[in-house]
Amino acid sequence: MAKKIAVIMGSDSDFPVVKSALTELKKYGVEFECRVMSAHRTPAEACEFASNARANGFGAIICAAGMAAHLAGVVAGHTTLPVIGIPMKSKALEGVDALLATVMMPPGVPVATVGIDGAKNAAVLAVQMLAIADEELAEKLAAEKKAMAEGVIAKDKALQEQIAAL
Amino acid sequence: MAKKIAVIMGSDSDFPVVKSALTELKKYGVEFECRVMSAHRTPAEACEFASNARANGFGAIICAAGMAAHLAGVVAGHTTLPVIGIPMKSKALEGVDALLATVMMPPGVPVATVGIDGAKNAAVLAVQMLAIADEELAEKLAAEKKAMAEGVIAKDKALQEQIAAL
Amino acid sequence: MAKKIAVIMGSDSDFPVVKSALTELKKYGVEFECRVMSAHRTPAEACEFASNARANGFGAIICAAGMAAHLAGVVAGHTTLPVIGIPMKSKALEGVDALLATVMMPPGVPVATVGIDGAKNAAVLAVQMLAIADEELAEKLAAEKKAMAEGVIAKDKALQEQIAAL
Amino acid sequence: MAKKIAVIMGSDSDFPVVKSALTELKKYGVEFECRVMSAHRTPAEACEFASNARANGFGAIICAAGMAAHLAGVVAGHTTLPVIGIPMKSKALEGVDALLATVMMPPGVPVATVGIDGAKNAAVLAVQMLAIADEELAEKLAAEKKAMAEGVIAKDKALQEQIAAL
Amino acid sequence: MAKKIAVIMGSDSDFPVVKSALTELKKYGVEFECRVMSAHRTPAEACEFASNARANGFGAIICAAGMAAHLAGVVAGHTTLPVIGIPMKSKALEGVDALLATVMMPPGVPVATVGIDGAKNAAVLAVQMLAIADEELAEKLAAEKKAMAEGVIAKDKALQEQIAAL
Amino acid sequence: MAKKIAVIMGSDSDFPVVKSALTELKKYGVEFECRVMSAHRTPAEACEFASNARANGFGAIICAAGMAAHLAGVVAGHTTLPVIGIPMKSKALEGVDALLATVMMPPGVPVATVGIDGAKNAAVLAVQMLAIADEELAEKLAAEKKAMAEGVIAKDKALQEQIAAL
Amino acid sequence: MAKKIAVIMGSDSDFPVVKSALTELKKYGVEFECRVMSAHRTPAEACEFASNARANGFGAIICAAGMAAHLAGVVAGHTTLPVIGIPMKSKALEGVDALLATVMMPPGVPVATVGIDGAKNAAVLAVQMLAIADEELAEKLAAEKKAMAEGVIAKDKALQEQIAAL
Amino acid sequence: MAKKIAVIMGSDSDFPVVKSALTELKKYGVEFECRVMSAHRTPAEACEFASNARANGFGAIICAAGMAAHLAGVVAGHTTLPVIGIPMKSKALEGVDALLATVMMPPGVPVATVGIDGAKNAAVLAVQMLAIADEELAEKLAAEKKAMAEGVIAKDKALQEQIAAL
Repeated sequence: MAKKIAVIMGSDSDFPVVKSALTELKKYGVEFECRVMSAHRTPAEACEFASNARANGFGAIICAAGMAAHLAGVVAGHTTLPVIGIPMKSKALEGVDALLATVMMPPGVPVATVGIDGAKNAAVLAVQMLAIADEELAEKLAAEKKAMAEGVIAKDKALQEQIAAL
Repeated sequence: MAKKIAVIMGSDSDFPVVKSALTELKKYGVEFECRVMSAHRTPAEACEFASNARANGFGAIICAAGMAAHLAGVVAGHTTLPVIGIPMKSKALEGVDALLATVMMPPGVPVATVGIDGAKNAAVLAVQMLAIADEELAEKLAAEKKAMAEGVIAKDKALQEQIAAL
Repeated sequence: MAKKIAVIMGSDSDFPVVKSALTELKKYGVEFECRVMSAHRTPAEACEFASNARANGFGAIICAAGMAAHLAGVVAGHTTLPVIGIPMKSKALEGVDALLATVMMPPGVPVATVGIDGAKNAAVLAVQMLAIADEELAEKLAAEKKAMAEGVIAKDKALQEQIAAL
Repeated sequence: MAKKIAVIMGSDSDFPVVKSALTELKKYGVEFECRVMSAHRTPAEACEFASNARANGFGAIICAAGMAAHLAGVVAGHTTLPVIGIPMKSKALEGVDALLATVMMPPGVPVATVGIDGAKNAAVLAVQMLAIADEELAEKLAAEKKAMAEGVIAKDKALQEQIAAL
Repeated sequence: MAKKIAVIMGSDSDFPVVKSALTELKKYGVEFECRVMSAHRTPAEACEFASNARANGFGAIICAAGMAAHLAGVVAGHTTLPVIGIPMKSKALEGVDALLATVMMPPGVPVATVGIDGAKNAAVLAVQMLAIADEELAEKLAAEKKAMAEGVIAKDKALQEQIAAL
Repeated sequence: MAKKIAVIMGSDSDFPVVKSALTELKKYGVEFECRVMSAHRTPAEACEFASNARANGFGAIICAAGMAAHLAGVVAGHTTLPVIGIPMKSKALEGVDALLATVMMPPGVPVATVGIDGAKNAAVLAVQMLAIADEELAEKLAAEKKAMAEGVIAKDKALQEQIAAL
Repeated sequence: MAKKIAVIMGSDSDFPVVKSALTELKKYGVEFECRVMSAHRTPAEACEFASNARANGFGAIICAAGMAAHLAGVVAGHTTLPVIGIPMKSKALEGVDALLATVMMPPGVPVATVGIDGAKNAAVLAVQMLAIADEELAEKLAAEKKAMAEGVIAKDKALQEQIAAL
Repeated sequence: MAKKIAVIMGSDSDFPVVKSALTELKKYGVEFECRVMSAHRTPAEACEFASNARANGFGAIICAAGMAAHLAGVVAGHTTLPVIGIPMKSKALEGVDALLATVMMPPGVPVATVGIDGAKNAAVLAVQMLAIADEELAEKLAAEKKAMAEGVIAKDKALQEQIAAL
């Protein structure tokens, strides 16, 4: 049976950014569960979710958190599934705090970190992970990659008209 | 009965720096327990220790960790005791990663952060916390403060000779 | 008699942020005094206040300052009470200047630093310090921690409906 | 048939750090190919390798590069396999350049970034990816996680003797 | 025959900034081609363009990209023409990511980097390169330099009136 | 009567760097007093010194301090003399902490900040200040400036031989 | 005869910030000349101005510039007067570029740097320099310092009413 | 007649790094002049050199400087030749100060900046500029590019033996 992706955010205020991960997962027909769980406020819930994630049919866990972003690291401490971290930009420091708090994990407990506010990329990365052993999903990724290239080529063409009009 | 201080480090490689916290606590006659517990490798132990710390007679918990330093934050999620974080400098980034990962806590779950590798100050801060309600300890702190001032004044005098010899 | 908390800010322009520390202290029924005193403009007042704070019934001093934020450090030089520093974000540098100027204290004179603009956390930390020796306050903190967890769980539930509607 | 892991480095001077990724992969019995290929000096080789990696039996590609680290991003542009980036610390800037150049990828082309010089974690992450659909590998990861915890517990015990001797 | 300048941007969203490079090139009567090509989404197009640029009559290639800005580096890997990189500021990190990802190139593959969002300067630099062997263009640059100085002098005069009115 | 320069350092461990300020002052025949006084450990001494400095015949005060470098700011709060700050590099953060803690002063209380570990420049700046109203000192500065230029020109000549031998 | 202060800015777009330096100088009755001169666009004018500044009756030169802020350094290379640098915040990098480009001067050529956008402090510092040998100006500075303290004390009083109303 | 390249450094202490630029220029048979000239200590010499560089047969000017690196910018203010800036790493700040002081030039006065300590790349870039209009030089660059690729391929082969021996 196809694996699901878990998408966890530390606060529901992260949802406007995280939403684009869900949209992306839907595009690929990948099932997901999306939760608000905090490493600091509901640590028991987060740890329990992480501990049971593999048994519950998840293939990877996406964690979005800002500031001293501990969610991805804490989740990674409780599972052997790959954990993808999205460092969220917050009011100060341009997201550098969350980036460093997510990516600089100690040996043995990696977090696959994407760019600041990189929710879409977290989803693509999760799909890529599932697609290692799923030919159909791999083909969808290849088709999407081709479409992305065609989009750039179309924009390149459209630009030529703008430039001609300069 | 006098409260104890817990001193937790994420890795025993932190001990050479953390040791000066223990020396400082001893100077004040404050009892302590010192442990290696990791937010990522032994999260269950760390959470259990934090959850029971108040009941077990601790007054504050000092946590030293480097890189994506989650230990203090995770411990703070499991206790209502004040948690003091020591950001440890490691191989890259001059300790900035640990500093931000320790200090930028979300509302409601503070970590009292001291400077990078600031083990002695973590101990002094812990003693200050205990001394809020402990006159004797407060007097020791005052005496130490006076001694510290006298030390600077003595160094100032010593310097005058060096300068005269320039 | 219960200890009071002092809340000092370097400029009254800090009040909109600092205010949430007062609200938090009120929630716990902790008495406080709130002052504008500057390390650079009214140093005598700040030093005198700090020097007498313990005798005047204070248990901890919260200091909020921006830029080259010296207030917490200067106050810490004049008291053996724990000093909590709030680095304030100002027009440039995202608050990094205030964070470093607050947290990187020399050995023997700690400042318990919270995150940038972390006024609420400064108050919670002050309450935690008082609660070391105050069971009733400790219970309030535990109740608040539980309420905070329930708030996250409620938001998690509310999110499920938003997601179902995607 | 079991997937292989590709480990590419931008320069053979990266090998002393990258080597620990190979050691880790061996520990899990995961087959790998290790190559020197540069995004700037042998771009054709790098692109061709990436383009054919899935067809050639690879499940994920680890890329290690320093400074303006483009290798992981360039490889990610030519494959739908998950690409894991190791930002390498070099002579200046403490590895911040490589970290940002690796992690801040545009939407649609993620790089799963680990910490600076995080070669071991890159390997663990690659194994975690393969283990999504490989029960046996997942069990090895769980066993390793348990061993890692036991190692910390053993060090915690050993520390107690050091402390008793203080 | 006079050399042309290529102006490539990684995304058409960069055009509002990049446009001023085109305006500047026009001012000097230098012919240019302006394209959208992505190091990650249309790498084949970018590499092919770079590989043939010298043969196609280009004298230099300006590349504008943000975040993990690989475009200039990738293009530089495929040509012996001078490549000028414009690091673009994007949503987070103030353009530091793009600056470091553009400028910190490995030995043998330079990118001539201008300031963040420095599109006008990229064009001036390209013109300066062409003017090494083009006396007429060199004279235009000298005239422009003189005009620029006169502009400052005029503004200096205008300021005196504002000041008199203070 | 000629004004003296005060040179204060926060710790005698700063002396190896600060010494070059004294050497420089001697070169110009400017009298100085050099002291160890700490903003945090001997604040009373520092404040008293600053408060009386003008009356005691000082023309400017040089303050060297590292980490959360408050010395210059605190001194500036107690005098109307110009205060020159030397941010000292310490174990972590490359001196950035001291630089920001020294330079980012609030309106009305400036600190004339020189570069990290810039003791010689602090002395030159102090001499320049005295030389505003001291023709003889101004001539010494002009002579030194000329000598400095001649030194560079001599090194330029010496280099030509090294290059010829390449 | 009383010395004048020169206030130079690299671009007239800096005037809205620089203006407060002029206001401050007026407050002290210090004569000034305010100019737009660029280290890069009108270097001859800037160098000539600096070279003749002492002879022309100036006591100090304030230079405001942003980005790669060379103005203060270039001016300092052409005069023995004290040069005060104001690093200006511009579109990217929060003013860090200008701060470092202003403050990190090589030995022998100091720039007295104030905080980012610190125009008022530049003026106060200039007045303090003139006041070394000008008792009347020193008294004005002392009066202003007293007024500043009284202002803070008044704000402290006003705050008490706001707090009472919470 | 073939254009020469000027290589200027702000201090002869930069020579150990700058030397590799000369070696590189020699490899291509490009004539050069190498000088010590300081933007702050011998500004007249630097400005005069820059002003006459084009007339004296130079095609581009390489400038190496550290800290508040003004040399490249000052030179760029006095010539219409392309100016290449090498930010030099010095004792503090990892070269970030020199990088920002070199690259963030105002509109109209570009500096073609290479990476920190990137002397070899500065030379390659200068050769690329000359090669725009010099077919023979362009062929040498292409040959060198090919050799560089072959070097990487050889190292890749050599690595396989090391790995086989693991």
